Amino acid sequence: MLKVGLMGYGKAGQAVARVLADDPRYSLQWVMRRQPGGETSLPGHPGVPVAAMDKLDFDDWLHEHPVDAIVDFSSEDTVYSYGEALRSREIMLVTAISGYSPLHRHYLRGIAQDTRVLCSPNITLGINFLLLAARLLRGIAPFADVEIVEQHFREKPEVSGTARKLAESLDLDDDKVTSLRVGGIVGHHEVIFGFPHQTVRLIHDAIRREAFGTGAAYALQVLSSQPKGFYEFDELLLTAIREQLLK
Amino acid sequence: MLKVGLMGYGKAGQAVARVLADDPRYSLQWVMRRQPGGETSLPGHPGVPVAAMDKLDFDDWLHEHPVDAIVDFSSEDTVYSYGEALRSREIMLVTAISGYSPLHRHYLRGIAQDTRVLCSPNITLGINFLLLAARLLRGIAPFADVEIVEQHFREKPEVSGTARKLAESLDLDDDKVTSLRVGGIVGHHEVIFGFPHQTVRLIHDAIRREAFGTGAAYALQVLSSQPKGFYEFDELLLTAIREQLLK
Amino acid sequence: MLKVGLMGYGKAGQAVARVLADDPRYSLQWVMRRQPGGETSLPGHPGVPVAAMDKLDFDDWLHEHPVDAIVDFSSEDTVYSYGEALRSREIMLVTAISGYSPLHRHYLRGIAQDTRVLCSPNITLGINFLLLAARLLRGIAPFADVEIVEQHFREKPEVSGTARKLAESLDLDDDKVTSLRVGGIVGHHEVIFGFPHQTVRLIHDAIRREAFGTGAAYALQVLSSQPKGFYEFDELLLTAIREQLLK
Amino acid sequence: MLKVGLMGYGKAGQAVARVLADDPRYSLQWVMRRQPGGETSLPGHPGVPVAAMDKLDFDDWLHEHPVDAIVDFSSEDTVYSYGEALRSREIMLVTAISGYSPLHRHYLRGIAQDTRVLCSPNITLGINFLLLAARLLRGIAPFADVEIVEQHFREKPEVSGTARKLAESLDLDDDKVTSLRVGGIVGHHEVIFGFPHQTVRLIHDAIRREAFGTGAAYALQVLSSQPKGFYEFDELLLTAIREQLLK
Repeated sequence: MLKVGLMGYGKAGQAVARVLADDPRYSLQWVMRRQPGGETSLPGHPGVPVAAMDKLDFDDWLHEHPVDAIVDFSSEDTVYSYGEALRSREIMLVTAISGYSPLHRHYLRGIAQDTRVLCSPNITLGINFLLLAARLLRGIAPFADVEIVEQHFREKPEVSGTARKLAESLDLDDDKVTSLRVGGIVGHHEVIFGFPHQTVRLIHDAIRREAFGTGAAYALQVLSSQPKGFYEFDELLLTAIREQLLK
Repeated sequence: MLKVGLMGYGKAGQAVARVLADDPRYSLQWVMRRQPGGETSLPGHPGVPVAAMDKLDFDDWLHEHPVDAIVDFSSEDTVYSYGEALRSREIMLVTAISGYSPLHRHYLRGIAQDTRVLCSPNITLGINFLLLAARLLRGIAPFADVEIVEQHFREKPEVSGTARKLAESLDLDDDKVTSLRVGGIVGHHEVIFGFPHQTVRLIHDAIRREAFGTGAAYALQVLSSQPKGFYEFDELLLTAIREQLLK
Repeated sequence: MLKVGLMGYGKAGQAVARVLADDPRYSLQWVMRRQPGGETSLPGHPGVPVAAMDKLDFDDWLHEHPVDAIVDFSSEDTVYSYGEALRSREIMLVTAISGYSPLHRHYLRGIAQDTRVLCSPNITLGINFLLLAARLLRGIAPFADVEIVEQHFREKPEVSGTARKLAESLDLDDDKVTSLRVGGIVGHHEVIFGFPHQTVRLIHDAIRREAFGTGAAYALQVLSSQPKGFYEFDELLLTAIREQLLK
Repeated sequence: MLKVGLMGYGKAGQAVARVLADDPRYSLQWVMRRQPGGETSLPGHPGVPVAAMDKLDFDDWLHEHPVDAIVDFSSEDTVYSYGEALRSREIMLVTAISGYSPLHRHYLRGIAQDTRVLCSPNITLGINFLLLAARLLRGIAPFADVEIVEQHFREKPEVSGTARKLAESLDLDDDKVTSLRVGGIVGHHEVIFGFPHQTVRLIHDAIRREAFGTGAAYALQVLSSQPKGFYEFDELLLTAIREQLLK
């Protein structure tokens, strides 16, 4: 059973912690929050400590609380605190931070010379499948009109990163992305392929943040059978699909 | 059985002619096209002449081919050729021209002093219900976010008149209307009401132009029980709904 | 500001408590749970006590903690513990219990002789609007084919009560209701009206349980302007719509 | 430019004829109807004869009107009239008949020893993509709940063949297919993948029969670069996708 440590205890982090703690394939060893305060163990899981990462020596911590993989839902710079420790111990990394700069990514690629690193801004299985399926259809039907529509809660400030990635991956201009902000929609993405006499719609609806946890669990599983290196989620999915197609 | 004459024999006119000719409540007497040429009777209905309106004296024509109602799917100015004849004969008018100017509408309101006139740019039952239902929900939930999305075939040049009317009737700015042009979609209109914890979607899909015929047939039926005057489709629907609610 | 007491502190009750505590129109005075244990005040709202209803004398409690309205999300029999107290004090009641027997309803109608009582199994604004809008369209287009589709999480045992109520209210046989159980869908209801040349879809998506809270808050507001009596949610909505239509 | 002959001139056949006649990649040489009568050339395309296949010697006909490919939208037994002629001349065949018996298919496989034969009951690009995409997602997420919903016009007698093929190809029981018959819907297929915290929907909407023509045109193009043999549409699509994935 894979031992996992989780960085980040915000809304997404808490949801991921709940999913990983309940997944029989993994043993969640600890959760790391930024600042001290609040609960010291995961609610409902008294054996899983929630520790504060400030002032912590990460090397010592890993010595006492060893893991096979780290899942990161904290923030951009956290990776600098644990990166070196991964290299020497060959700990896998699944990170879902969306705001990495090119510098961060350069650093992550460095780590990936010594261990397996997966880095993806949207780590749900459904969205990554949508990405792939849309790319396949675009490839076989380049003549179809394509539109991307995303709908999110009123407060979401800008175009969803996922919609931007979809557009980029389909080689579409930004004006092919429509963003609607209505009420409390958790996350709706739709890719519409318009043919002269038929329409294909690929739709993803996020229900709740726990979807990130399921995605992280899936990523850990696929990543664990790969060689050292740097991966993105949709690439791993593609690998899985390639294997399936060659059967 | 109501005797009906149809002005207009373009794509919409032909579809409306087929529907009216098959509706047991009506007896389609004739169809009027702009220019001579082509078939002289409705395909499959040899008893229904298709005549050319140029050089025709409309008064004489009506004397020889009397009707109780005229349905107009031709173009803006046609109304001037038959308007006076309606007044003296109290012939009902259902007109679905979308491009009337204020001057045209003024003229139509004049006719409506002597007979029943229904004038609506979109005459399908479904769209007019959508208009009404959206207005009702907006009235009881003014705090909900509202977005209008319309999807049509690639060649459709501008924002759909229906979507504009929806926005106007809901007192929404134009930027709340999204127009997507994809493939060969006949006509898709969606009004999304976003609440913090729920979403309501009202959706209309046009399948084919015959929907205008069903709408005209419905309009004729409701109009025939109304007093003289000028009506719009959604108003008539509202009247029908009021009666239903007071039962 | 209306003083409100809430019966029930299960998953729905907790969500309703959060919404009512944050609504500036209301002042949530207390929450009542069945059994003692757990937190003694609403998280984030230390001034709102969470008390246990067992062994409590409800009349004494109301004397010390007076309210203008009670909202009930607990279980069927709770109403017997506070019913008489409502009558003498003319406290409004909004109850969203779905399992009331005819006996319970008889008792509630008795209370409604002395005060205002609203009783509805599904108290969200959206679902009740769907009910009404579907009924209106059915009334003006009785010839359209109608189908109801509901989709819920895998574990939901039987046909949704809302779908059954929709069918009943549209005078449809049970075989016109399709229930799909897939993954973790919170609650999706769709009424499809099929016309020969067009389709109308009325769709409701629940996002989270807090929708019950918004519905209860809306119900309290409309109920407070009504005379004594027994009401259902869709009736109140109809009243609001009638007033809107007569403007 | 590929010379094409079309068997069948029913509703589907006529739509396919229009599409092939307008496609610059192909030169439609002739159309074959079952019985004599009606127009003798394709409307709008005076150079394309419409001939009757009864009493015709097909070998003579092909000698005088040679083609590189035959597209068949007629009925099951027609294949016996032209099958041998294909073998000797290495004419490609794209047939979209849905009612072939095992005997017919055996005969077609025989022909495929000498030329390229594509045989598929649903020949639209969109539906075949849906088949493939659904199979891929099923492969990488076998734990997801899957439901198939198809909606068609009121008169369609039984479960759609496409829905049945989808279910079979996803290894789902028949009770996972819901068939709704409402109004005049041309053809709506939806595959729903339910995950605990997200939902993926793959949706295909047929707009009009010309979609078969676009599908046949696409099939001809892909088939022409394949070696001799027997193919199904989704297989060809899979080949195209494999090539794309290996790039």
